[in-house]
Amino acid sequence: MLLDSIQQLNDIKKIDPKDYPALAAEIRRFLVEKVSKSGGHLSANLGVVELTMALHLVLDLPKDKLIFDVGHQCYTHKLLSGRREGFDTLRRSGGMSGFPRTDESECDLFNTGHSSTSISMGLGLAQARELTGEDYTVVSVIGDGSMTGGMAFEALNNATELKGNFIIVLNDNGKSIGDNVGGMSGAFQDLRTAPRYNRIKQNVKNTLDKIPTVGGSMVRHIGKAKDALKQILLPNMFFETMGLTYLGPIDGHNVGAVVKALEAAKRLERAVVVHVVTKKGKGYRFAEEDPERFHGIGPFDPVSGRSLETSGKTYTDYVSEELIRLAGEDKRIAAITAAMAAGTGLAAFKEAYPDRFFDVGIAEEHAVSFAAGLAKGGYKPYVCIYSTFLQRAYDQIVHDVALQKAKVTFLIDRAGLVGADGATHHGMLDAGFLQTVPGLTVMAPRDGRELQEMLRFSADFDGPLAIRYPKGSAPEELYSQRLQLSFGKAEILEEGSGILLFAAGSQVQTAAEAAALLRKEGLQPTLVNARFVKPFDTQLLRALSASHRLIAVMEENNRSGALGEHVADFCEREKLPCRVLNLEPEDAFYPHGSVRELKESCGLDAAAVSRKILEAAKETGL
Amino acid sequence: MLLDSIQQLNDIKKIDPKDYPALAAEIRRFLVEKVSKSGGHLSANLGVVELTMALHLVLDLPKDKLIFDVGHQCYTHKLLSGRREGFDTLRRSGGMSGFPRTDESECDLFNTGHSSTSISMGLGLAQARELTGEDYTVVSVIGDGSMTGGMAFEALNNATELKGNFIIVLNDNGKSIGDNVGGMSGAFQDLRTAPRYNRIKQNVKNTLDKIPTVGGSMVRHIGKAKDALKQILLPNMFFETMGLTYLGPIDGHNVGAVVKALEAAKRLERAVVVHVVTKKGKGYRFAEEDPERFHGIGPFDPVSGRSLETSGKTYTDYVSEELIRLAGEDKRIAAITAAMAAGTGLAAFKEAYPDRFFDVGIAEEHAVSFAAGLAKGGYKPYVCIYSTFLQRAYDQIVHDVALQKAKVTFLIDRAGLVGADGATHHGMLDAGFLQTVPGLTVMAPRDGRELQEMLRFSADFDGPLAIRYPKGSAPEELYSQRLQLSFGKAEILEEGSGILLFAAGSQVQTAAEAAALLRKEGLQPTLVNARFVKPFDTQLLRALSASHRLIAVMEENNRSGALGEHVADFCEREKLPCRVLNLEPEDAFYPHGSVRELKESCGLDAAAVSRKILEAAKETGL
Repeated sequence: MLLDSIQQLNDIKKIDPKDYPALAAEIRRFLVEKVSKSGGHLSANLGVVELTMALHLVLDLPKDKLIFDVGHQCYTHKLLSGRREGFDTLRRSGGMSGFPRTDESECDLFNTGHSSTSISMGLGLAQARELTGEDYTVVSVIGDGSMTGGMAFEALNNATELKGNFIIVLNDNGKSIGDNVGGMSGAFQDLRTAPRYNRIKQNVKNTLDKIPTVGGSMVRHIGKAKDALKQILLPNMFFETMGLTYLGPIDGHNVGAVVKALEAAKRLERAVVVHVVTKKGKGYRFAEEDPERFHGIGPFDPVSGRSLETSGKTYTDYVSEELIRLAGEDKRIAAITAAMAAGTGLAAFKEAYPDRFFDVGIAEEHAVSFAAGLAKGGYKPYVCIYSTFLQRAYDQIVHDVALQKAKVTFLIDRAGLVGADGATHHGMLDAGFLQTVPGLTVMAPRDGRELQEMLRFSADFDGPLAIRYPKGSAPEELYSQRLQLSFGKAEILEEGSGILLFAAGSQVQTAAEAAALLRKEGLQPTLVNARFVKPFDTQLLRALSASHRLIAVMEENNRSGALGEHVADFCEREKLPCRVLNLEPEDAFYPHGSVRELKESCGLDAAAVSRKILEAAKETGL
Repeated sequence: MLLDSIQQLNDIKKIDPKDYPALAAEIRRFLVEKVSKSGGHLSANLGVVELTMALHLVLDLPKDKLIFDVGHQCYTHKLLSGRREGFDTLRRSGGMSGFPRTDESECDLFNTGHSSTSISMGLGLAQARELTGEDYTVVSVIGDGSMTGGMAFEALNNATELKGNFIIVLNDNGKSIGDNVGGMSGAFQDLRTAPRYNRIKQNVKNTLDKIPTVGGSMVRHIGKAKDALKQILLPNMFFETMGLTYLGPIDGHNVGAVVKALEAAKRLERAVVVHVVTKKGKGYRFAEEDPERFHGIGPFDPVSGRSLETSGKTYTDYVSEELIRLAGEDKRIAAITAAMAAGTGLAAFKEAYPDRFFDVGIAEEHAVSFAAGLAKGGYKPYVCIYSTFLQRAYDQIVHDVALQKAKVTFLIDRAGLVGADGATHHGMLDAGFLQTVPGLTVMAPRDGRELQEMLRFSADFDGPLAIRYPKGSAPEELYSQRLQLSFGKAEILEEGSGILLFAAGSQVQTAAEAAALLRKEGLQPTLVNARFVKPFDTQLLRALSASHRLIAVMEENNRSGALGEHVADFCEREKLPCRVLNLEPEDAFYPHGSVRELKESCGLDAAAVSRKILEAAKETGL
């Protein structure tokens, strides 16, 4: 096994170049085996095996600086930088992260997980090096999908100012190239490896040959032009018009070719784009055929490629189902995703209502303001974005939606703890930052049915609205009783006295479990499902304050700015004679691990919650 | 007077085309006269007189939809859409806004003020029109500066998907074209009007002629290439490689030429970029010579061009001065602006330390992540951004700075109410959304001296830090006593008992005035300058809770998520026997007006504050 000789950083430099293909194959087998057990980002990692080998061969790590955009494609990098053992604990609590982590290795520069940031960070680093006069190479590796994010463009635009070397590797895996890529004869037939190209080829009758192009949809429609020469020059032209030097396209599965290009790029005293063409899922049949399913996947059977996880119906499934139903009834309903059709449950919507489905690429800012435009034009847009990525569009929510009182609904998936992807992917801030947006209404459902009711409510709601719900399986119906949904109104699920559990979203279930534990201790807690967290039901709280002395607030979000503080402020304002017990977790970046473990560690589980309530109840004399 | 015949929308269509130049001249005189009294955005408005006339001639408003990016260049649009009278109350409380306002006219589509959003909104609207089958034209007018904002690129990228007409007018006033524009012979000599071009011309020896190019710095460095043809084709190439149709460049001061181009653009069933070249400040000598000073200006003498405002030393001045001093002592200090060198006080820093000064263009997201890179490379970057524009970079602050524990300092100018620019420019959210960022420290100074001390403190502080301060003149030294600045520690300015005024930043002055009023009523309030709002001084609050029964919290920020709620939550958590009186204003988008009027209307003035405290004191039995 060649891989056995890769124990620490730079061991790859001892490998005989003729063995590179064999080593790459071994790495792929290793990754498939490990990820089949742990789950993880398989497709992207299989795509960059040779590219990462070439980077490790050319660079002098950790002196040189290597930054992976997003970071989910860093597995081979971890393997080559002495972290082989880590793969046995990949993505587990206390184990190795699936993303770059500065506390794991000096070879990881930043803790990342969001898209389109690597050029900015790399440029800052290269600029610092120019000022200090130090001598190291900076490389940012960015996918064609990430390149559609606006801040990547801002950074490219700024990179022309740099007076020294900076290498931007554009990892073009063709995944965001659409159906309009025009026909042409080219010189790079050996690069035409992505299955997508071949499908297009069959569909287009008068096609000649294809070459890979750059930047995804940014060049999607140029295909209409008939000039073959123009198309060959497209990626070149795009970067050259911006004032950047362009090298490529390079076969990203040929270690020697990539090494050569990187060596050439290193010699230039300016920002250089090295355009490398790779194939997502490369070398593992099932991932090549369905790279999207293997993008981020749970444990699977490596022989059949079949997923081993059988999760129940998820919140996302409920959204998917209900949004299609609503769109059938109301032709003004439209859905928008920022390159996450499958993850946000919109794949089925796309099939059912292609005209009213918009995938704008990795471009959350644009997604939100585009929705404001659709709303102005009479549509009812639903913007479906993960909580953590919605952070990208805070100002657009404020300036382009809330200030306009635009009828835009945000479906915020993955709100709360998400588990194995860790700090960069938890949705623990949205319930805080959304509270600061004037005029925005924010809801959170207790179960799948209520999520669907909230969707129905949103269709006729006149104003900006957000619905936040967690990752993973949803209880279908936590309580069968169900109060009619009405603006700003909470729902009493269990009536008691003394202690009021005021819970939002996923924490209603925790509160119900805690209530059962508290009843065993002789207490009679009232359980209220907040439903609306902005504005929350102040009228009900005022009414219940007469018979309750302790209000325990529960929400799956960091404490700062979230519901608990608002309730405390309200009780002070109204001089209610109740103590407020805020059970939201402390402000922190929570690590990766299972959601269950994470909830326990930050006190979001029923045991911790009921313990704290009991304590407070005693102090309050209940 | 031709202008007298422009009383309502579409009156311009009755004007004889030969009179267009005369009308344009009258409009300019009108604008100079009105803005000299009210203050406002002069340069940009003088630049788009003929362009706006052409748009009103070609479009059928309000059926057609016209969107100005940012919106500060909408004065001629307001004049031509029947709002002439409004100029007598321009930017005043209750008067006409300096930005588009949907409540003023059907011809204003969105309430805007931030950059780079117009293509997204216009595209959404055009897309809605395609779906409904309605028949109207959508035009977004965007400057070359705004085009550097990433979300404009995201929208351009997405615009290629549109199957119908959408006109993007690129208003290229050459203002963001840097010194590296290369020499060339061109066919557009008549367009070379910007004085900047002529300055460059003199500097470059082997220069031939110049043509205006597109997109500011995005093409800045292409000048190094010697191919003249390539340069003529640059703007064309840039948009064409993205799959957009390009028309231009057009002389933006020739109404007929612009009309012709717009008519041609209307006939295309796709997204079209119409590249119009204009001159900022056109027709008013002082604004032509110094467009930056006349970008946003207070009242001035129209004859001499001299400013009539003599404001005292501003917070910005204190920053400007101290940052240069620090940079002289510490060569690791760097400063970053997003196209706001003058506004943020960095113009002098740029002169003094050009190597460590970075203007990244209108690109707040990139600015923040670029700073994270500089910090990783050993620098101490100061990111200077207005509060309202920092909203653009919320995720970058979270993901690229706070998660990395990067030593980046944010200097947040215009935090709080800003006055005449209104809803889109107030900085009333940052003290809320920054509280949600784990591990970020946030400070606010009571006066100019303390701001400088905070800057000195920041230079040696190890971690992400933000300092927020208001627009306008700063008291030099509100109190001469001064406790040494220490992490997380507040400062007692006046000792008393019963009532504790816990004030942050600009509200320390208000609290001092309120304290004087309260003393007249026989109360003995303690006055504490919070200094740190995240984390705030819990130790001091705990200690003072023994002798105080009412804590009045004062901060110039919307209530949600800000200091008051955190103090309420803290007191509940600690079971302190104090009532918390949150004196922060209600969540809202506040309109334009003078800062004094606005403070009164939202209860941030000493009279309102002391009245509420007195009332609460009585209720509390003090």
